[in-house]
Amino acid sequence: MFKVLLSHIQNKVDLSKEEKIELQSFFVFKKLRKKQYLLQEGDMCKHISFVRKGLLKSYFLDEKGGEHINMFAFEGWWISDFNSFINQEKAVLNIDAIEETELLMITRDDYEKLMLEIPAMERYFRILYQNSLVTKDYRLIVSSGFTAEEKYTQLMKNNPEIIKRVPHNLIASYLGLAPETVSRIRKKISFK
Amino acid sequence: MFKVLLSHIQNKVDLSKEEKIELQSFFVFKKLRKKQYLLQEGDMCKHISFVRKGLLKSYFLDEKGGEHINMFAFEGWWISDFNSFINQEKAVLNIDAIEETELLMITRDDYEKLMLEIPAMERYFRILYQNSLVTKDYRLIVSSGFTAEEKYTQLMKNNPEIIKRVPHNLIASYLGLAPETVSRIRKKISFK
Repeated sequence: MFKVLLSHIQNKVDLSKEEKIELQSFFVFKKLRKKQYLLQEGDMCKHISFVRKGLLKSYFLDEKGGEHINMFAFEGWWISDFNSFINQEKAVLNIDAIEETELLMITRDDYEKLMLEIPAMERYFRILYQNSLVTKDYRLIVSSGFTAEEKYTQLMKNNPEIIKRVPHNLIASYLGLAPETVSRIRKKISFK
Repeated sequence: MFKVLLSHIQNKVDLSKEEKIELQSFFVFKKLRKKQYLLQEGDMCKHISFVRKGLLKSYFLDEKGGEHINMFAFEGWWISDFNSFINQEKAVLNIDAIEETELLMITRDDYEKLMLEIPAMERYFRILYQNSLVTKDYRLIVSSGFTAEEKYTQLMKNNPEIIKRVPHNLIASYLGLAPETVSRIRKKISFK
């Protein structure tokens, strides 16, 4: 049950046998069917969730109901409405499952307790967030300064998993492009 | 010299008297004149810098030389090309001073050493990055799902300091808007 999470943590920090056992008591398990919500806009995001299996998306709905993808989360990723989770404000994001998904979830209080009881987890989350900031920074650069084709080819290079598993209309939304633009680019690339 | 930095740290974690003294030995001081570069695209970002005084911008140049602002950093903010600093890859961002600026800088090696020698700093950076992720997430939501006027009014509400101190053409670049659009919105708001 905890194999994927423990291996993700141990890629970054060392845990003792006792810490590995203690850590498990902080998490609850949850299964989501395809298309099931994990979080809806306006609710409180009570957990941050580690993806043990499956694939989810978080997204923002504009006034006209247009869906803007914030991120995809595969096995080994964490997902939440981070502002809602950290500051206990109402969520602006929706999160639902693209594939059947299994999660390990921790509450806000337990998240703080975990780091006090297992200091290595403070280091784990520092490194996790550090890497996440690198990714978000890059995403801001790509979204503001790249052409449509550059956006798509960068995604192919950096996240081939997204291209392989995520429906094309969602990839378009993630890149802030029209679905027809993505189709045109895909056709052009396959001709090369 | 270290007052602003120490107070920023102590808002998040407790440091002993000895730790406060030890911490200072990790940093070097640097002054920048207005418009002076801290970092140029293609160079290695060797430091992460704490702004003791002043104001800087980091930005990305597109193929046509268009400037896309990544962030502004005031007193109490940290700035770097974070990917270049963390992964020791070439910088894609430029950083220069909008006002006369004073920095406290730490190298990649010393940054790691600092957290090993003063574990509270691990917690400090975890909390710093946590807050930073909330901000970047929000910025991605705003940039993809908000109208031009919403972008400007949200900035007014959340970062009045930027509106007050940053030249209008740079604000436009930060929001991904044409300078004329920002002028039009400003006029409209001042009429209300």
